Amino acid sequence: MITSKDNDKIKYIIKLQSKKYRDQFNKFVIYGDHAIEEALKQGFEMELYTSNPLKKGELISDELIKKVSLTETPTDCLAVVKKRPEQSYSNRILMLDNIQDPGNMGTLIRSAVGFGFTTVISSLNSVDYYHERTIRATQGNLLYANLIKAPLADRIKALKFMGYEIYVTALQGSVDLKTITPKDKCVLVLGNEGAGVSDDIMRLATKTIRVKTRDIESLNVAMAGSIIMYEWQV
Amino acid sequence: MITSKDNDKIKYIIKLQSKKYRDQFNKFVIYGDHAIEEALKQGFEMELYTSNPLKKGELISDELIKKVSLTETPTDCLAVVKKRPEQSYSNRILMLDNIQDPGNMGTLIRSAVGFGFTTVISSLNSVDYYHERTIRATQGNLLYANLIKAPLADRIKALKFMGYEIYVTALQGSVDLKTITPKDKCVLVLGNEGAGVSDDIMRLATKTIRVKTRDIESLNVAMAGSIIMYEWQV
Repeated sequence: MITSKDNDKIKYIIKLQSKKYRDQFNKFVIYGDHAIEEALKQGFEMELYTSNPLKKGELISDELIKKVSLTETPTDCLAVVKKRPEQSYSNRILMLDNIQDPGNMGTLIRSAVGFGFTTVISSLNSVDYYHERTIRATQGNLLYANLIKAPLADRIKALKFMGYEIYVTALQGSVDLKTITPKDKCVLVLGNEGAGVSDDIMRLATKTIRVKTRDIESLNVAMAGSIIMYEWQV
Repeated sequence: MITSKDNDKIKYIIKLQSKKYRDQFNKFVIYGDHAIEEALKQGFEMELYTSNPLKKGELISDELIKKVSLTETPTDCLAVVKKRPEQSYSNRILMLDNIQDPGNMGTLIRSAVGFGFTTVISSLNSVDYYHERTIRATQGNLLYANLIKAPLADRIKALKFMGYEIYVTALQGSVDLKTITPKDKCVLVLGNEGAGVSDDIMRLATKTIRVKTRDIESLNVAMAGSIIMYEWQV
């Protein structure tokens, strides 16, 4: 049983709490039965750790697993999971330009999976998919998404060539969501919580759209995104 | 200029960071130019405090205003605002049964104002409307809502008598949102993040509805609520 914080595997788990090491090792950490079951079902490669002798995985002391877990409620198991390589594009794609809030990122992934936008492409400057608060906000749906992180402009050009239409949300000069029937293959682009979609991406739009509201200038990005994906679900 | 934490007005401001005192004094605190402008425009009664001699309000030292402000970015002004009494019901009403997350509460109020559900009624066990994170998530829209906190069952009975239909979200035994055309006067009831709407409220529903998704059991409550209010906006 591992009991010391100085154990190499524990040091490794703690390192994975920072984006730098998640990028470097291409791994991330999930906590608790539900998430681990989902990951196993989805065929992810992983190493299991637990403080419960009845469960599979390398034993860690109770005290130590509490120390290394970033969850709000204590858990008796965690897994170090290998990220998946990029998969084929789905027909509906969600693209995120400089999303900063882990909660927004997580709820957007959750809604995207729910409405069939299973490929998510985020800009390099967006918050990490594997941030602990992002994973928590996805409520187990992270593992169902084809998550890609890449410069957006090049991807958009390639996607256009493949026949995708690019719909970008914008408050000004845009058309009401209700007037649009999306093409079967389409990309929904959402932007930063404060600044919206950046100009260089905006210029690549097939159409700019907005969710019509009564009094307020803008909805929270996760709300606007969920509403559009709901309308366009396949 | 107030410079001491032991000043009675400062002690009062700090007390208002807890729900107990917000309830007792019937006041809450807002921070920054934007929120204060909105509150003035809306005619709220308030006392202004600032560290900027050019602005209206009682002077507080820079250091002290930083200490008493719960904002992420520093601000040079705050206001102690008197809560408004209950106003007449709007035709569209949002009802919240045991919502616990301040972020969800705030984004729901923001969407509600955006889609014309300007009256919000929350159960006594829901998170406070005036929690600092709730106010922040409303992005200035808190002051546009008619916010009521009350036992829900009695309100529902009275609202039914007034001709309102009661639509409650539920995953099971419910009908797809898309099959419903709401009555002009209607109440949308959303429930707790984990447990959903409680049984005693569920029993009072005119209809139970759900937002159809592909793979996942449920959307985040703020997403589901925003989608329904978008569909039913007036």
